Amino acid sequence: MSFLLKKHQNLPAYAPGDHAEGAGVIRLNTNEPPYPPSPGVAAAVAAEISALQYYNDPDCTQIRAALAQRYGVSPANVTVANGSDELLYFAFMSFADETHPIALPDITYSYYDLFTAALNIPLVRIPLRGDFTIDPSAYCKIGKMIVIANPNAPTGYALGLDQIEDIVKSNPENVVLIDEAYVDFGSKSALGLTERYENLLIVRTFSKSRSLAGARLGFGFGSERVIADIERVRNAVNLYSVNRMTQAAGVAALKEDDYYMENCQRIIRAREYTTRMLRQQGFEVLDSLGNFVFAKPSGMGAAALKEQLAQRGILVRHFNQPRIRDYLRISIGTMEQMQALDAAIEMIFGRA
Amino acid sequence: MSFLLKKHQNLPAYAPGDHAEGAGVIRLNTNEPPYPPSPGVAAAVAAEISALQYYNDPDCTQIRAALAQRYGVSPANVTVANGSDELLYFAFMSFADETHPIALPDITYSYYDLFTAALNIPLVRIPLRGDFTIDPSAYCKIGKMIVIANPNAPTGYALGLDQIEDIVKSNPENVVLIDEAYVDFGSKSALGLTERYENLLIVRTFSKSRSLAGARLGFGFGSERVIADIERVRNAVNLYSVNRMTQAAGVAALKEDDYYMENCQRIIRAREYTTRMLRQQGFEVLDSLGNFVFAKPSGMGAAALKEQLAQRGILVRHFNQPRIRDYLRISIGTMEQMQALDAAIEMIFGRA
Repeated sequence: MSFLLKKHQNLPAYAPGDHAEGAGVIRLNTNEPPYPPSPGVAAAVAAEISALQYYNDPDCTQIRAALAQRYGVSPANVTVANGSDELLYFAFMSFADETHPIALPDITYSYYDLFTAALNIPLVRIPLRGDFTIDPSAYCKIGKMIVIANPNAPTGYALGLDQIEDIVKSNPENVVLIDEAYVDFGSKSALGLTERYENLLIVRTFSKSRSLAGARLGFGFGSERVIADIERVRNAVNLYSVNRMTQAAGVAALKEDDYYMENCQRIIRAREYTTRMLRQQGFEVLDSLGNFVFAKPSGMGAAALKEQLAQRGILVRHFNQPRIRDYLRISIGTMEQMQALDAAIEMIFGRA
Repeated sequence: MSFLLKKHQNLPAYAPGDHAEGAGVIRLNTNEPPYPPSPGVAAAVAAEISALQYYNDPDCTQIRAALAQRYGVSPANVTVANGSDELLYFAFMSFADETHPIALPDITYSYYDLFTAALNIPLVRIPLRGDFTIDPSAYCKIGKMIVIANPNAPTGYALGLDQIEDIVKSNPENVVLIDEAYVDFGSKSALGLTERYENLLIVRTFSKSRSLAGARLGFGFGSERVIADIERVRNAVNLYSVNRMTQAAGVAALKEDDYYMENCQRIIRAREYTTRMLRQQGFEVLDSLGNFVFAKPSGMGAAALKEQLAQRGILVRHFNQPRIRDYLRISIGTMEQMQALDAAIEMIFGRA
């Protein structure tokens, strides 16, 4: 028995990656970066503690200004939220509902399913091609809100800017949301297109490239028009959602942005090493532009290998769903962690 | 022009209190406590910084356990959220929609209007009596979700437990939400009733009595059934909404709870002083059980007095809406701050 409205009673549960912490555990299952925040973050957060009895700035003025400066746009082109998850929810709620469906790839970030289920938004799931790439022509002139993670997860494949532009240009009446959570690991941002296309909304996060997953800070770029739409809904749903400490952490992080961009280069090098290494171990590995690789082991099923790795203290992600259950998504940590993965795989396959 | 769904295009904007900060400004307009967090909060937050690259615990295990222990319930009877605002939104979304209205007082916390507008929930507004008290009989057997702030804001009046119980008992098929944001300033909590009534949901916050408004931490108590309902929606909307720093701050605050409960006693004493003082100044003052008083000046309109006080660096709140536009809501700060208010009023009325 439940008091819950009937329409919510079958809401699916999100299955988060295992969040086990502790010495000896190597977490390659939640796409977190292996590096802590930059030195200035601690001091910036500490300075907020003695003012925590006061509400945070609902307009997020400082962090929006810092983002605008960093990315060469105006603060009116920027919105922030309590993680990009919240921003995605605001965007879905703003532009889609039971009679306004969303088109998106059949294989993509799994949380989109939950937001749309919560909001009763029908989905038009467009299959990835057989090689796991997105077919951009399938989205042209579709006449619906479109959501594409670019690079996509868990594949790591990215569309080029020309392809994004074709999609945005051919759907002028509908919002095209490009989720660039992983953009800092080597793909091209569509930010420049927001000047020309009012219907383009770009969603970003401090969780992947800027080591603030546990602080919850997402941000978005778009035309003044599309940002004003999001702000209207944000204002009614949770205007104070980005707390003081997180706003301060974000401002401090952007002052030390070189640190994070260098870490991204380290992760790219470790990703290239991991791709080569896994291929040498006989895996099929997609050419990823994220901080993860998507790889199919040979000689053992993906679920079995995940268990074997877990027994050796290495956590990776397996999605038990059609088309991808033979693959593992492996987050990219430090070079040392990826070498430990290499050694563990050699052990498991008895080649060490 | 807007991409926003038509149903959201007339969403009202929330008018937050003026958040001006700085030396010389006395903020008596947002019901924040005048005291900073307890000493242990800084260290607890600092310890999280080096782990901010990792996601926070989506189950909020430690803070839920700490709340369960403090209040003598089980963790299954507790939920937490990114401020009580988010918890209110989750609750409204769980139990009400366009065909399931909410009954609530005509004069109450203004954000309820925004959440319900965002969710297209019709409101049955039940007028307060002429003396601004709630008539509990108007809610009995009403057969709808009910939302009552107890104490109510901005009046500061509270219902007794017998009256709450009558309402809860007579609506067994609907959730009765009691918003106890201000309960620590002298009213009785309905927490004990959650053992007997599955349909009772109590919403609380760390913002008013525990000096963490800027950290965003709300919590709720209820039967396992009603909490499971909320968790299902929370899970689909924003499972990671309570960041690491805020979870740690909340756990640390509860370890030093005597500090906060003593501050509440200080605020109660300052409220009693303020009530006497304003009455001596000719104001009509309601007997508040919150960390604010609701008062009607004589010899000057409320809006004009608000401006006069602002010119002297003292911010208070005025609601330009029917029935209450002759009143000011004045938050209770330190005794020194309330004495400064006294002196400013004497100056304004030329009695000094």
